[in-house]
Amino acid sequence: MKLYTYFRSSAAYRVRIALHLKGLAYDAVPVHLLRDGGEQRAPAYREVNPAGLVPALVDNGIVLTQSLAIIEYLEEVHPMAPLLPQDAVGRARVRALAQTIACDTHPLMNLRVLKHLKGPMGLSEEQKMDWYFHWMGEGMRALEAHLERDGDSGRFCYGDTPTIADCCLVPQVYNAQRFDIDLAPYPNVARIAANCADLPAFKAAHPSAQPDTE
Amino acid sequence: MKLYTYFRSSAAYRVRIALHLKGLAYDAVPVHLLRDGGEQRAPAYREVNPAGLVPALVDNGIVLTQSLAIIEYLEEVHPMAPLLPQDAVGRARVRALAQTIACDTHPLMNLRVLKHLKGPMGLSEEQKMDWYFHWMGEGMRALEAHLERDGDSGRFCYGDTPTIADCCLVPQVYNAQRFDIDLAPYPNVARIAANCADLPAFKAAHPSAQPDTE
Repeated sequence: MKLYTYFRSSAAYRVRIALHLKGLAYDAVPVHLLRDGGEQRAPAYREVNPAGLVPALVDNGIVLTQSLAIIEYLEEVHPMAPLLPQDAVGRARVRALAQTIACDTHPLMNLRVLKHLKGPMGLSEEQKMDWYFHWMGEGMRALEAHLERDGDSGRFCYGDTPTIADCCLVPQVYNAQRFDIDLAPYPNVARIAANCADLPAFKAAHPSAQPDTE
Repeated sequence: MKLYTYFRSSAAYRVRIALHLKGLAYDAVPVHLLRDGGEQRAPAYREVNPAGLVPALVDNGIVLTQSLAIIEYLEEVHPMAPLLPQDAVGRARVRALAQTIACDTHPLMNLRVLKHLKGPMGLSEEQKMDWYFHWMGEGMRALEAHLERDGDSGRFCYGDTPTIADCCLVPQVYNAQRFDIDLAPYPNVARIAANCADLPAFKAAHPSAQPDTE
């Protein structure tokens, strides 16, 4: 398998975690999101992923895109080290936590959005960061409230083994920590992130441990 | 089953389409996103969904959230009228199309984001609409490019029966049409939306046919 990735991309980071949790070998193909106006927007990469976004996974010559779709594919094709619970309600809960991050939170603060706020929208650095902190807070509060209310979490988001929800939580917490956001109001999130950080798979997938790390 | 819904919410609209495609009966519980500062943000609804977002589905007393997680749950518990292909690659393709809308496009233009742009961010109506059109365009281009390149579409996004991808495409096209966005540059998207519009399930789920339609 070949993974088009960027060391700091949250979406690529999610897929790297899933690959390492399942013990699947892959070749990393770095796509630099900042160099030359963004290699992901260049025609060569658009042939891989016409949306011009990372990650993309190539398996048996077939290109797959979208981090959660890729992880569900890995789960179906390589069911060992399952990243979803066995029962439908548990699976729905895990997917909902993952989507709280991947649909409601991260899309509002990824690189292309932040660049659009400062470029075409003409906002100041301060306004851009206000935006960032606002949506990070909304997302973290929603995640924490679900973890607290649903009562499914153990060492990880759902029980005591990592799931797709943890594959999403950890990159989001990494982003929060890059900007020194205090995690004290989100004790379940902080606890789970710390438990994940102890595992070799999460260490291997970390932005600081990639071939394209700067 | 009980669905907390708002007639114009794209995410609720997706779930309504899935319920109708599967022929599942449900009670609609309207949550008015604009009344009294948003009923979805009130304590009563936060007890249902702590994230303060619609939709939420209650099945056998269990509350499920996030539109795509809810639809995957319905697919697992009620497999008739399947909304995903049988093979892993097909499933990944359908999920990726769904997420192109649900992760990359719609989160940037939903009600809470548009309100935040005009309120706390202090942008003008014109700037807000520039933002809306920009991300709608990005999303539609990505969707069209995938439909064109991947070659999986037939009458619908993937083959000749509706899938989760169509549950997402139709509400996004509804949004585009509300703002008179020309669909001519997106012929596959326009063709599929028209084919969906002919089906009773899509008609029943339409914002114009809900108990809370205004």
